[in-house]
Amino acid sequence: MTIAIAHLGPAGTYAEQAADCYVNLLAKTTGLEAILCPYPSIAQSLKAVAQGQAELAVVPVENSLEGSVTMTMDALWQLDSLRIQLALVMPIVHVLVSRASSLEGIKTVYSHPQALAQCQGWLERFLPNVQAVATNSTTEPLQLLSSDYTAAVITSKRAAQLYNLPILATAINDSPENCTRFWVVSQTENTTFNLTSTANTTHTSLAFSTPANVPGALVKALQVFAHLGINLSRVESRPTKRSLGEYLFFIDLEAQESQLEVQSALADLRAYAEILKIFGSYNVMPLNIV
Amino acid sequence: MTIAIAHLGPAGTYAEQAADCYVNLLAKTTGLEAILCPYPSIAQSLKAVAQGQAELAVVPVENSLEGSVTMTMDALWQLDSLRIQLALVMPIVHVLVSRASSLEGIKTVYSHPQALAQCQGWLERFLPNVQAVATNSTTEPLQLLSSDYTAAVITSKRAAQLYNLPILATAINDSPENCTRFWVVSQTENTTFNLTSTANTTHTSLAFSTPANVPGALVKALQVFAHLGINLSRVESRPTKRSLGEYLFFIDLEAQESQLEVQSALADLRAYAEILKIFGSYNVMPLNIV
Repeated sequence: MTIAIAHLGPAGTYAEQAADCYVNLLAKTTGLEAILCPYPSIAQSLKAVAQGQAELAVVPVENSLEGSVTMTMDALWQLDSLRIQLALVMPIVHVLVSRASSLEGIKTVYSHPQALAQCQGWLERFLPNVQAVATNSTTEPLQLLSSDYTAAVITSKRAAQLYNLPILATAINDSPENCTRFWVVSQTENTTFNLTSTANTTHTSLAFSTPANVPGALVKALQVFAHLGINLSRVESRPTKRSLGEYLFFIDLEAQESQLEVQSALADLRAYAEILKIFGSYNVMPLNIV
Repeated sequence: MTIAIAHLGPAGTYAEQAADCYVNLLAKTTGLEAILCPYPSIAQSLKAVAQGQAELAVVPVENSLEGSVTMTMDALWQLDSLRIQLALVMPIVHVLVSRASSLEGIKTVYSHPQALAQCQGWLERFLPNVQAVATNSTTEPLQLLSSDYTAAVITSKRAAQLYNLPILATAINDSPENCTRFWVVSQTENTTFNLTSTANTTHTSLAFSTPANVPGALVKALQVFAHLGINLSRVESRPTKRSLGEYLFFIDLEAQESQLEVQSALADLRAYAEILKIFGSYNVMPLNIV
């Protein structure tokens, strides 16, 4: 059996790099083979799993500099019955690729606005007179390089290797603390995919909407966890898309869904929440990218 | 005296449209003249105010579908001493512009990914076989239209008028509830700029970081406001950019900074917060765009 793994494409995105790491871990742990299936958006990669076109999706959840990936939260809320199997934490290392013979030959740097922002200090120091141009992804502008030898792109090392592009500078991020958390998501609970002990998962993720005014309901919901000594590692609000000022709340617990305290907290939470969705219990695995 | 108002450029962005509305209101209320100064990013438009190159900036804070504008929150936290004078709520109405003689002649639609997403239903219904291409803004692809008569762009009505482009369809958003909240920001408190009574402002915005683990500190901080009967209209977390899992919290209170309960709450909050920044008290003004 070959597993299909959906991810944000094209090949060379950081999501594809995380998915590729997962494929190697899956093969090593279970012997299962998997193929990577690129989709044009995060929402479409999750929809592919919900509709059975792919067994798994690897989607970005949160970056240490940019914060939560809102597209992932919105799609998880809208698509029912998806379950998180595993979290992967991957260091993000940007490289500069170009067909110029040296940095002196570069006139324009292209990349996604977040990548440009994350390398701003390096650009000011080493390419102070170069124009920065924002693009829609870190891979899209790579096609420019074959015709324009004065162009450079900030992208992933994996993209440089895949498209056989010369790397002029590596690890050009201003902050070495740049990492992204991904979730491995499947349609139903499947212990094959979590690669770790399911008896002791460390995190549980859920989301809920509140019926009336935000403050009272949110405080009460958070108190439920605080009173039972359950730590939260993330609290994030998203608009309900009904009207300005109405929110959903996404919460990551540092606890396992099956624990008695968690079961008790979730029962209490149902009293304050309008809709409550539980996305699963899982472990967190750091990825070492060289 | 002519006031300089910084905004995300180029002309035709929704930020420029909000800034233009503000210029008209300012002239009507105070007789002051103002000029619009486009900047390449939201952060740079706020920096222009912090460094005294512009008196005011008009920046997007939150959209009813897409949620908070993280760039604005991060820049406000980093730049000290900026004050919010007024909030503007503007309906977002997308139009389709093209030099094609009718919808049948269109082969490609270009726009910012958020605008494409917000018109997805309309596109599926009226342009089902047309390729959608994501761009970095709703104004950037407009230059393509003069050479490519099969191209269309989703943009603002203001951009269509500014660049004299034919509108083929108007109000093509799937949700009519699409609106964006902007803040008018100055370097210091200045009652000329808030256009409304400063004796009774309805909102106060602040942000704080918490010293140790998130959950306890956030619950305690929110309890401070709940106990004093102060409503919160928004709670948003942002990464501290130090390490994954460390957050700042941005809160909008439905109360005036000078109220006794608010003063008391802020005094209590200082006990739980590592750093507390107050961005100002202000009123909210709806803009009617025809």
